[in-house]
Amino acid sequence: MHSPELRSAAEDIAFVLETLGVGEALTRLAPFEEFDTATLVQVVIEAARFAREVLAPLNAVGDREGCTWRDGTVSTPAGFAEAYRQYRDAGWPSLPCDPSLGGQGLPLVTQIAVQELTAGANLAWTMYPGILHGAYECVHRFGSAALRNAWLAPLVSGEWLATMCLTEPGAGSDLGQIRTRAVWTDDEKETVRVTGEKIFISGGEQDLTPNIVHLVLARTQDAPSGSAGLSLFLVPKVLAHGERNEVRCTGIEHKMGIRGSATCSMAFEGATGYLVGEVHRGLEAMFAMMNSARLHVGASAVGLAQGAYEMSVRHAHERVQSRVPGADAGTPIAGHPAVWRLLEGQRVGVEGARLLLYRAALAIDEAHHAATPAMRTDADALAALLTPIVKATATAQAFHGASDALQVFGGYGYVEETGISQFVRDARIPMIYEGTNEIQAIDLLMRKIVKDDGATLSRWLAWGQAQVREASVLDRLSGFADASHAFDAWTDLMPSLIALSRTTPRAALCVAGEVMQAVHGLSMAGLWAQASMAEAESGGTSAGSTSDVKRHAARYWLKFELPHTRRAMAMVAAQIQDPETAQ
Amino acid sequence: MHSPELRSAAEDIAFVLETLGVGEALTRLAPFEEFDTATLVQVVIEAARFAREVLAPLNAVGDREGCTWRDGTVSTPAGFAEAYRQYRDAGWPSLPCDPSLGGQGLPLVTQIAVQELTAGANLAWTMYPGILHGAYECVHRFGSAALRNAWLAPLVSGEWLATMCLTEPGAGSDLGQIRTRAVWTDDEKETVRVTGEKIFISGGEQDLTPNIVHLVLARTQDAPSGSAGLSLFLVPKVLAHGERNEVRCTGIEHKMGIRGSATCSMAFEGATGYLVGEVHRGLEAMFAMMNSARLHVGASAVGLAQGAYEMSVRHAHERVQSRVPGADAGTPIAGHPAVWRLLEGQRVGVEGARLLLYRAALAIDEAHHAATPAMRTDADALAALLTPIVKATATAQAFHGASDALQVFGGYGYVEETGISQFVRDARIPMIYEGTNEIQAIDLLMRKIVKDDGATLSRWLAWGQAQVREASVLDRLSGFADASHAFDAWTDLMPSLIALSRTTPRAALCVAGEVMQAVHGLSMAGLWAQASMAEAESGGTSAGSTSDVKRHAARYWLKFELPHTRRAMAMVAAQIQDPETAQ
Repeated sequence: MHSPELRSAAEDIAFVLETLGVGEALTRLAPFEEFDTATLVQVVIEAARFAREVLAPLNAVGDREGCTWRDGTVSTPAGFAEAYRQYRDAGWPSLPCDPSLGGQGLPLVTQIAVQELTAGANLAWTMYPGILHGAYECVHRFGSAALRNAWLAPLVSGEWLATMCLTEPGAGSDLGQIRTRAVWTDDEKETVRVTGEKIFISGGEQDLTPNIVHLVLARTQDAPSGSAGLSLFLVPKVLAHGERNEVRCTGIEHKMGIRGSATCSMAFEGATGYLVGEVHRGLEAMFAMMNSARLHVGASAVGLAQGAYEMSVRHAHERVQSRVPGADAGTPIAGHPAVWRLLEGQRVGVEGARLLLYRAALAIDEAHHAATPAMRTDADALAALLTPIVKATATAQAFHGASDALQVFGGYGYVEETGISQFVRDARIPMIYEGTNEIQAIDLLMRKIVKDDGATLSRWLAWGQAQVREASVLDRLSGFADASHAFDAWTDLMPSLIALSRTTPRAALCVAGEVMQAVHGLSMAGLWAQASMAEAESGGTSAGSTSDVKRHAARYWLKFELPHTRRAMAMVAAQIQDPETAQ
Repeated sequence: MHSPELRSAAEDIAFVLETLGVGEALTRLAPFEEFDTATLVQVVIEAARFAREVLAPLNAVGDREGCTWRDGTVSTPAGFAEAYRQYRDAGWPSLPCDPSLGGQGLPLVTQIAVQELTAGANLAWTMYPGILHGAYECVHRFGSAALRNAWLAPLVSGEWLATMCLTEPGAGSDLGQIRTRAVWTDDEKETVRVTGEKIFISGGEQDLTPNIVHLVLARTQDAPSGSAGLSLFLVPKVLAHGERNEVRCTGIEHKMGIRGSATCSMAFEGATGYLVGEVHRGLEAMFAMMNSARLHVGASAVGLAQGAYEMSVRHAHERVQSRVPGADAGTPIAGHPAVWRLLEGQRVGVEGARLLLYRAALAIDEAHHAATPAMRTDADALAALLTPIVKATATAQAFHGASDALQVFGGYGYVEETGISQFVRDARIPMIYEGTNEIQAIDLLMRKIVKDDGATLSRWLAWGQAQVREASVLDRLSGFADASHAFDAWTDLMPSLIALSRTTPRAALCVAGEVMQAVHGLSMAGLWAQASMAEAESGGTSAGSTSDVKRHAARYWLKFELPHTRRAMAMVAAQIQDPETAQ
């Protein structure tokens, strides 16, 4: 089992688009007929160039300088605003947007690729445009015609940026506690004055764009308590006629990482806001934005994991320390079995996360554009199932992968100048924001598995098991036969898990994390099988060739990762057998 | 399975000393006959008070200020020097030292407790006296009478501090690459001039003590290449007659964590040094220091894990967010099953690590002082076996536990002011220094298991399995019966693992990490069984009482941690069945 050479993110995304057939699947959707896969790959290559040449050089600078708050204004690190100008001028914000609004009408998949590549080069910078697509989605889908006409075009062009204002000091994971109030100022109930305090608002204030569109969850005076009483409002920093709205940034956080990203406390003091969607149904509109945000977080995480992986691979091939059993003195440390595990574990983690990420992104494009309503409904359900899995597992991979990358550097990794510790620090936040990974696990179990009696999951796993069965005959991939048994075991397990979740939800929730790991593992079995077969069919089966990448990765995954899936399933089974309810 | 209330480090160390019988075992050793367990516990309580009152308040300050280097001098953060003065005046450095040198002649166990408690309050500060005991051990055991007379008393009193100077830019894990040279200046070959560069030297320069004793690995002009040619030298900052030696600090590192600890680059430019031990046998003397350092790192890690755990428990009981299934609105987040897992996982991790740490420390005291040579040899072998396990697993627990603690805080955890992110950043280095955790795994497999054909390990596991069998009849701890099967499986596995390690070491080393996890898991099974029984015998069996702590922890461990041991063993077995050699 040799280690194939480093494959860049762009090359691996190209594999997903070309060899794995995601590009072809996209161009079968009506709005994308005019694009061929080569065009999509070209977009990826351009984004990779932008990330490498413009954003990567600002990553350490942003970490060192951080942001500065002064009297309600925020200065971003040197170079951030200019990089954003270039990003905007190149048209990157408009990639997946409606052509009638100035968008380029490309698949969401390309937007996800841009997010992955920019975040991998500079997550702090990427935070600024990071919520743009979610805000666009939300206003585009839920906003009135007047609202869309007034506010969408500058978001599509990137002239303005956007924020998602949910969290308050007393309301984090529990949005029902939100206290920000909205008072109607018109009889049509379209306009409000918003008053309240929001915290942890990424890009709540910045010096990249002249206006910022805040999407704010608040409670109208007539609203019931709890999350059912929330409505969503569009609150611009600058109003249509150029007047400054009553919203200001009262401070920024000093954080462990993503220091170039301004995390703002915001005070709304009778700020003018416009209703988005229906009154009291703010959560629904917010979730259009949140689901997009969660997938974007997953994409960022894949980018971070790749960035850390690349750094550690390079170091492992440059750093010479001997004492490799069976090797000459003066061998690079990559030759040590322990370092090989750290590197291959990262590779398989990041490339695996990428397979899942683009499968989820494709499902969203299909949910919007597939030929029949039934196909669209199925794709939508699949996207809903995969989104929390992508968010939780890719972000865990980014943090633990970056920590493994740091370990490859040894003592040098702990020194800030080396740059790898910034990856570890930056990668710690995606496990928390846009719903902690624990909340993703609850969402997966309760809303994505239990709610439809496991129907969507069963359909997804049936596809996965079929891939696994087919792949098990490939050269040296007979381990897939074992993986097939894991699917059978899950099929046996799921009905009692669903029953337990209904009768004793506390007991089921105690192993929600293991359910996440198990479902992720089975998903990966299917995806690695698919990738191995696609690679083999494309002619990459000669041993030792660079086109053997996926077979090697699959083999590593079967040997060193599948046992974790089995262990997670055993823990779920043990909990069903003898439920603990925590207290 | 309820969550018993928080037990402080001092209370849990008292459990180890009193209920678990470590104190009694110590007072059976000849030199400690005059101490009773209550005295040892009193030392622990005093150390905890010092850590809480003097060191903890300096932890955030040290992180914020860091150290300052200027023209070869280093300023430590405000308050560090005064805290050290108090530590020295209270006699803490002399705890386990020879009474004839001014030491207090207490067991090493008490020194380990002090290390755990001070590091838990302030790891950066603890780095300064952290190597003191190792340096004392090394000079005490290997130094000539003249050397001992001249240099030991001020180390025992803590008037001076010490460093371990091993790493060079080209020689980290591979000490054979060391280039620092030593040239004899006398015919007796006792004194040298040392010339070379050392990096990553903790406390290489500081403003706590007027002198610093450096223990330096270097190569004499007549030495063979590789690690067999290294000798160890004592190189003081200030020579006996008060003259400054030719050693200076050329800079300090800007690090991810432990920022209050000065990590120095040192230049030796013909510095006067004195041989410690025999020429060319520097590694042997160095390892006396290193083994002590590794156990101290493990102790630090337990302290860090406890500190992070305590912070997260308090937050989880204060932070109110609702939506706990089956609970009223306004429940503290500790009531969420997911948060319960994060908290209990930490508790079981830290209390388990403590059980192992003090077992290893006791073995060292027994190795020095047990009644018969055979008992001393056995205890020494056990200490050698357990040291890498403590170092690797306690440090992994500290980092991952601190990360889990941060997760409990959610977004607040990512903000530096909260203080938990410092634990995560500080806890990242113990996985690297004094031999990376990968090197600990190699040491465990190759030098502690394979070398004696598994004899020491088998003896240790036989004890563990006996504990497990006995405990399996306790109320609601029948899970120990399963754990007993895991011992049997290991017994079946070990001969082929040893064979593979000899025939194809590369293949065995690919799963050295899993061997570490498996042996750690089996060790913990024995220790949790012992702790549960000791607690039960002490009368703590009434359900819900605070003296039920260990039974609850054992039950959690059996359900949620033992499966990881089984998984690790399955991975070792799979590698034996179908060995991969990495490349």
